Amino acid sequence: MAHRIAVIAGDGIGTEVMPEGIRALEVAAKRFKIDLAFTTFEFGSCDYYLEHSKMLPDDWFDQLKDFDALFYGAVGWPDKVPDHISLWGSLLQFRRQFDQYINLRPCKLMPGIKSPLAGREPGDIDFYVVRENTEGEYSSVGGKMFEGTEREIVLQETVMSRVGVDRVLKYAFDLAQTRPRKKLTSATKSNGISITMPYWDERVAEMAKHYPEIAVDKFHIDILTANFVLHPDWFDVVVGSNLFGDILSDLGPACTGTIGIAPSANINPEGKFPSLFEPVHGSAPDIAGKGIANPIGQIWSGAMMLEHLGYKEAADAMVTAIEEVLSEGNRQVLTRDVGGQGSTVSLGQAIAERI
Amino acid sequence: MAHRIAVIAGDGIGTEVMPEGIRALEVAAKRFKIDLAFTTFEFGSCDYYLEHSKMLPDDWFDQLKDFDALFYGAVGWPDKVPDHISLWGSLLQFRRQFDQYINLRPCKLMPGIKSPLAGREPGDIDFYVVRENTEGEYSSVGGKMFEGTEREIVLQETVMSRVGVDRVLKYAFDLAQTRPRKKLTSATKSNGISITMPYWDERVAEMAKHYPEIAVDKFHIDILTANFVLHPDWFDVVVGSNLFGDILSDLGPACTGTIGIAPSANINPEGKFPSLFEPVHGSAPDIAGKGIANPIGQIWSGAMMLEHLGYKEAADAMVTAIEEVLSEGNRQVLTRDVGGQGSTVSLGQAIAERI
Ligand SMILES: CC(C)[C@H](C(=O)O)[C@@H](O)C(=O)O
Ligand SMILES: CC(C)[C@H](C(=O)O)[C@@H](O)C(=O)O
Repeated sequence: MAHRIAVIAGDGIGTEVMPEGIRALEVAAKRFKIDLAFTTFEFGSCDYYLEHSKMLPDDWFDQLKDFDALFYGAVGWPDKVPDHISLWGSLLQFRRQFDQYINLRPCKLMPGIKSPLAGREPGDIDFYVVRENTEGEYSSVGGKMFEGTEREIVLQETVMSRVGVDRVLKYAFDLAQTRPRKKLTSATKSNGISITMPYWDERVAEMAKHYPEIAVDKFHIDILTANFVLHPDWFDVVVGSNLFGDILSDLGPACTGTIGIAPSANINPEGKFPSLFEPVHGSAPDIAGKGIANPIGQIWSGAMMLEHLGYKEAADAMVTAIEEVLSEGNRQVLTRDVGGQGSTVSLGQAIAERI
Repeated sequence: MAHRIAVIAGDGIGTEVMPEGIRALEVAAKRFKIDLAFTTFEFGSCDYYLEHSKMLPDDWFDQLKDFDALFYGAVGWPDKVPDHISLWGSLLQFRRQFDQYINLRPCKLMPGIKSPLAGREPGDIDFYVVRENTEGEYSSVGGKMFEGTEREIVLQETVMSRVGVDRVLKYAFDLAQTRPRKKLTSATKSNGISITMPYWDERVAEMAKHYPEIAVDKFHIDILTANFVLHPDWFDVVVGSNLFGDILSDLGPACTGTIGIAPSANINPEGKFPSLFEPVHGSAPDIAGKGIANPIGQIWSGAMMLEHLGYKEAADAMVTAIEEVLSEGNRQVLTRDVGGQGSTVSLGQAIAERI
């Protein structure tokens, strides 16, 4: 039986890296005898919005819900559609309606990639950010009063539920359990954000009781970002709320020099709904259309998708191919962001060949 | 007429670095013929809390309101008092009740300090973080429902007012106006936090109209933290909400290797209430009592206080003394965090002598 994959390339460089993601997946599928069936959708992009005045058709949920996974490029083009409209109209809907409550993002210093941090070598940085992906600071609750006057006031609710907090913590503790260092760091800000964040801490302490072998620590988000720069080697599994996880999963890849190549998985662990796999980078309007975007984030996200579908060996082969091509450092092949002169296609082809 | 300074050392290393802050200020005051009168208060510390079941006496506002400035160490000792209680009972009260709506924090790569970022030299990094300091994510509005059950839900409001947002933006634009590069960066997250953050963006766009010479850009907080690491040279004046400013003003000093020495000013620009000057670092229970804490954050905060009181020349002399002692790099004098073997006192004395 074929695994049905819904493909949504989105905007900007999303449309350029997506073909390379598919190329790599097709090669891996062939080699490991996996049956993948791709179906491409045009919606979920700003161009679609300009035509239809919405990011998604009304029946998107039904169109997508029976796929085994969504393979996503990048969305957003602020000159066409304001970001909060394009994102809340697409990606954030998928995450929430398909209850993809885990956002999993590896931060790994790869061979051949220069870290912006002094003296860090591959092996020094290798951790996961586990981000809550459906509630918290990304709420849709709030509004304005006294609009347009000097007294104008704007409110937005942060919403944490016991169910929402506990399930992401459980996932993170379970993940830490599988790692040699068995270490979990919680991102908090309970000294300043005095209602939701102490609650988060409470739930972490409660969950920790069930995992006596895990070494748990916590940092306030301000000093935690500092420690990502100063001591990236301290971290193994880092768990945070929707906003804190968002910040840490951009900062982490920045510290490993891989902001353009980091992958992410938006997971519904129960498999009730399809999970979504996308690069961490955005649609990058500034370099879109030039064919120079790095396709590794898309390809690596494809590897996470295969792993999620149960093909660990194939996923590992894809990541190994990425590592090999990066360590060879062939400037004709690599894209500019990693020190080369090649193109999206040249790098995508090289990785596909290696797989 | 003497300037009346209220001194609150607080907890942990706060009590160790404070005497060095005062030593440096007294020397500067003597040299520049400034009349400073220090009054020390015991409240605002966790030990005070253990005795009185509160962080501050009921009449703290009246006791402090006529001072010209507050000179603060660091507060917090989680093993004695939970952070949200100690902080909301002291520092956050001062900021809010004394309407210190600007939190100003320089991020500067100093001579003799090794940046954790590869290849960065003094001069490469030199910007200010201007943080909103009284509202935003640090609200006291919210609560719990269905407590103790599976349905438990916790809410906390982020509150932005036109007055609150506009006044911090105005301060930041005015500051950018005084700087050679005339550049202002706004921290936002309007793609995900869809009510308050688009409002923040709107007010930035509105304010920018009054400052045609200022080059304005904005980044979402996730990629902004990444850019602090990747391109710290891009920034001149960075303005953010209470939470985003908090994060950036720890991350910025981390990138300059000065997390232990960065100063901050909590300012009520109208001078209706006293402003408060404190190092960025916390009370650091882990190294408290050892006499090894770096006193530069406290001393530099003292310099910001003198500048605020109108003594720019004296403030510059203090900062120059810090820079000179750092560039000399005498290991007997410097504390461990900056590569030496000296003590809080040895470093404080060396700077005082240089002033
Ligand atoms: C201690 C804490 C409440 C405080 C804050 O978050 O404002 C601190 O981190 C700071 O930056 O001054
Ligand atoms: C585009 C934006 C809404 C999104 C987020 O904040 O979740 C992105 O930054 C991410 O990390 O996936």
